[in-house]
Amino acid sequence: METVRWSAAGDAVDIIDQRALPGELLRLELRTVEEVCDAIATLAVRGAPAIGCTGAMGLVVALAPFAKSDRESFLAEAERVGARIACVRPTAVNLPWAVRRLLDRARATPGDGSALHTALREEATRVLDEDRAMCRRIGELGVALLTNGARVLTHCNAGALATAGIGTALAPVYVAAERGLGVSVFADETRPLLQGSRLTAWELSQAGIAVTVLADSMAASLMREGRVDLVIVGADRIAANGDVANKIGTYPLAVAARHHAIPFYVAAPWSTVDPATASGDDIVIEHRAGEELGRGFRSPVAPDGVAAYNPAFDVTPAELVTAIITDRGLFRAPFHFAVDGHDHALAG
Amino acid sequence: METVRWSAAGDAVDIIDQRALPGELLRLELRTVEEVCDAIATLAVRGAPAIGCTGAMGLVVALAPFAKSDRESFLAEAERVGARIACVRPTAVNLPWAVRRLLDRARATPGDGSALHTALREEATRVLDEDRAMCRRIGELGVALLTNGARVLTHCNAGALATAGIGTALAPVYVAAERGLGVSVFADETRPLLQGSRLTAWELSQAGIAVTVLADSMAASLMREGRVDLVIVGADRIAANGDVANKIGTYPLAVAARHHAIPFYVAAPWSTVDPATASGDDIVIEHRAGEELGRGFRSPVAPDGVAAYNPAFDVTPAELVTAIITDRGLFRAPFHFAVDGHDHALAG
Repeated sequence: METVRWSAAGDAVDIIDQRALPGELLRLELRTVEEVCDAIATLAVRGAPAIGCTGAMGLVVALAPFAKSDRESFLAEAERVGARIACVRPTAVNLPWAVRRLLDRARATPGDGSALHTALREEATRVLDEDRAMCRRIGELGVALLTNGARVLTHCNAGALATAGIGTALAPVYVAAERGLGVSVFADETRPLLQGSRLTAWELSQAGIAVTVLADSMAASLMREGRVDLVIVGADRIAANGDVANKIGTYPLAVAARHHAIPFYVAAPWSTVDPATASGDDIVIEHRAGEELGRGFRSPVAPDGVAAYNPAFDVTPAELVTAIITDRGLFRAPFHFAVDGHDHALAG
Repeated sequence: METVRWSAAGDAVDIIDQRALPGELLRLELRTVEEVCDAIATLAVRGAPAIGCTGAMGLVVALAPFAKSDRESFLAEAERVGARIACVRPTAVNLPWAVRRLLDRARATPGDGSALHTALREEATRVLDEDRAMCRRIGELGVALLTNGARVLTHCNAGALATAGIGTALAPVYVAAERGLGVSVFADETRPLLQGSRLTAWELSQAGIAVTVLADSMAASLMREGRVDLVIVGADRIAANGDVANKIGTYPLAVAARHHAIPFYVAAPWSTVDPATASGDDIVIEHRAGEELGRGFRSPVAPDGVAAYNPAFDVTPAELVTAIITDRGLFRAPFHFAVDGHDHALAG
């Protein structure tokens, strides 16, 4: 899949342009800070881990013109560009996390602009490689939750297209498929931007895994009919108390899962856990243009000028989360994530 | 609004073509059984009460060529055409109810085809007039649930466009607006056919009532934010035990309302109550073409050939319904609707 990779010449971030899916598989090369920010803002690349990778690698390519600068000029420029990239979208913590990691590396590296730029490229490549390994680890941890023939319901896209590897929520599904477990997936279409029907259905079809799309409002009926064994979703930010910010529509899914006594799992890299955020109430929820609802499909579906409520994410309280699967382990409630990263609940 | 009316010459059912909304306000004249069935099947007219009226009036216009037949030929043709109209859509009980009512009237009327046809026209006009009065009564009963500034969440369209009058779920809102109560409405867009964003938002805007559209998956977040005072939805069939079949997406709304301790009301004409159906498990749920999900907006939003789960309705168990408002009264749980129409819980 290679959602995010270095271009052949190493001078660009080479991404799949997810706006064109499922119609066309196009790739885009990002070289400037404008191109990187635009790709993230317009969702050409999306998914918390993938935008973390894109942000880190984008910082490197955008700094190429400054590789011949002196140390102080390079660091100043890195801070400026990094600050710009880090805040393109507010909810996912991975973007500022990846940028901060690169800036820390730059400061800790001796030498001139050229040395710092080389170190940053190495660090961004490490972010990318670690993301792939993180996905695999989540898949191997999560596959234990899947029995033969398990029917998984998911929301939005937390698959290969959302990461540099085999995804987060979908990683256990891919690993189960590798092991011949015969799993199948119900994919919420995920209004308003249809990441479920456009992206999750596309990537699972490509992989030969059985997938059924449904409107978000249909998931509860499926549960009531006894056709869903478990729910797995991704996350954009996980607060210290286990509250999970994820794509809008995740929360009602958790409420419905609880009502039907169906386990509700969140799969995310450790970098998505933000112990500095006490609870979901402290997470900034991005609200997007109302036109996404009324003009989302090239044909009017709402009257001109009607108001719209269009948050891009919501908060699922910890009490509705059965477990959180991270590359550091599978955590069950109650959650008490500590700032130092060591947690009493490690169970991986 | 006059969603359904007789044409000026009285020889056709004159309906608003709801497929063209909100872009254009077009009307259609239906004269043959094919035109009547097609209009109902393709959702040119929809909403349980409106399709009941259209079915009754459609039976009359389709029988015009037989008004000069003898009594037996007319009755035989009425049975044939009636059977065809009654089963165009399976979930709403109003369509077979209205057709049965006309056929009963024909059988009970003495005379030849001409006399029977005149009686049927009178009966269909009565169905239409009663529908208007029913809406008004629901509005007057339901307005008692609305305080000044009440914020109502609704799903699909159970407004003027779904009836011959001021709607069912929206009737209390219209009456509240008449009385200057300053109510506002959140309208779920209602995937896959967007009756909320296309129709509810349109008719409320036309009436000058504040309305905000949202994706169905966003309603739970609104509730969590404390921005919804009550939910009111319509119904396509209400079983004897109070289980309610309504547009897909109603059920998760009820689950979410219960989770947030927000009252969840169902508003429907008495003709929607079907005491012959014991519970929701006995209600046939219409499943519609998967293309509605993937090709719903003239532009591909899902991969070719992907499977789809696309029921048009769902069942909300009685235990999640706070009250059912009908033109015969406001009923609170537990529900015990009797076949004779007299109910211990009458509270209207």
